[in-house]
Amino acid sequence: MDLERYFLERRTIRNYTDREVDDRLINELIEEASHAPNTGNMQTYSVVVTRDEEMKRRLSPLHFNQPCSVGCAALLTFCADFHRFTRWCEISRANPGYDNFHSFVSALIDTSLFAQQFNTAAELRGLGCCYLGTTTYNASQIAEILGLPSLVVPVTTIALGWPADEGADAGRLPVRAIVHNETYHELSDGQIKELYAETEAREDSRKFIAENGKETLAQVFTDVRYTKEANEHFSRLFFDFVKKAGFHIPG
Amino acid sequence: MDLERYFLERRTIRNYTDREVDDRLINELIEEASHAPNTGNMQTYSVVVTRDEEMKRRLSPLHFNQPCSVGCAALLTFCADFHRFTRWCEISRANPGYDNFHSFVSALIDTSLFAQQFNTAAELRGLGCCYLGTTTYNASQIAEILGLPSLVVPVTTIALGWPADEGADAGRLPVRAIVHNETYHELSDGQIKELYAETEAREDSRKFIAENGKETLAQVFTDVRYTKEANEHFSRLFFDFVKKAGFHIPG
Repeated sequence: MDLERYFLERRTIRNYTDREVDDRLINELIEEASHAPNTGNMQTYSVVVTRDEEMKRRLSPLHFNQPCSVGCAALLTFCADFHRFTRWCEISRANPGYDNFHSFVSALIDTSLFAQQFNTAAELRGLGCCYLGTTTYNASQIAEILGLPSLVVPVTTIALGWPADEGADAGRLPVRAIVHNETYHELSDGQIKELYAETEAREDSRKFIAENGKETLAQVFTDVRYTKEANEHFSRLFFDFVKKAGFHIPG
Repeated sequence: MDLERYFLERRTIRNYTDREVDDRLINELIEEASHAPNTGNMQTYSVVVTRDEEMKRRLSPLHFNQPCSVGCAALLTFCADFHRFTRWCEISRANPGYDNFHSFVSALIDTSLFAQQFNTAAELRGLGCCYLGTTTYNASQIAEILGLPSLVVPVTTIALGWPADEGADAGRLPVRAIVHNETYHELSDGQIKELYAETEAREDSRKFIAENGKETLAQVFTDVRYTKEANEHFSRLFFDFVKKAGFHIPG
């Protein structure tokens, strides 16, 4: 396999065939993912696998009814988890101190690395994956449905199945937009315009603008897809849930 | 290449030869990494590449002088970045609302997925990588040295170079420790003991316990490596920096 091409050409898959994904395969992929790098080898993450159709139907509204949340063979909810490690400390005559913001952030990063190693391993076996960023929008209700204990916070979800189509090419910014040598180089207005020109010229971008009655692609993001109002609403909800899960956050 | 074996057997590499890593190769790997999944294709991340020896020496104490921070060919600091996207909105007659906790968390996750796709792509080309989790400990000073503007927060760093050794096998928990089917299953004390038995029996674990004069491996974590006191100290520092970077956090 040409791995460089895989990385450059991989696509999110949102439609799946009816073919099952074997439990043993899912467990093999999770084991492969668990060898992703992590902080102090504490493995501060867990994954809850949802295959039951009724459980998918209960989770789906919390993912804003994205079709892949019920159309997939399995939903995998990746959780930052300091619960297991804390329990191990407690039964090992050790006094754990992981109910804090820094430990939460560390677990959030490690859970993401673990999820992404799962995503890559699964795609390289021919499976289709779609991340559901909605996990942090409704973390509290997802945690309730999945029965998550203290110090466990859902971070992201992958919908998994055998691909029914090839997915769409989303495109990316030119790499020079994201690389900075030695220090961060502030871009001029002209440079930003030039870096986003290709994205703005895409047919799907122009369709988004027209469908939403907007003047620019950026307005589709700020006024429709990711509004200030919604972001602030979900900031409060997620912040409150992280505290409720037991991670104290400085005031 | 046997990809399944790669995932299961990959190792962190902390020692590198003197051989340079070509700039073009680093840029190719960053381009491959930029095709990792991300929220709304906003690409809310940047990477600062440090090759200059003097810059490495300035960053090294902030990474607690880990030898790989100066021994590597390049340090790559992966940053959650809503600055570029916000600038693009501002010059596109759009009103951005991304200076909040939820947007920060979203960028933190996407930056981690991007970093992990870089890590995998680099290792599959034969490069050695070591994540420096210390990035969130001293984010404020790292941001100052790298000249990061508002809404840019360093998340993690990868030390990169051609391997001088094979690295050490760190081992992982049995996969059943991290997988939950349908709902989270609380483990009994006996189950936790059994899941950590292999880790505790490792020669390096027993050496850690002896060297630190502790009774259990868990005590090495709680009393030496990741203490409650240090975690709470760095929680405050990181929280204050995230706010200073311009992400408002609910009080």
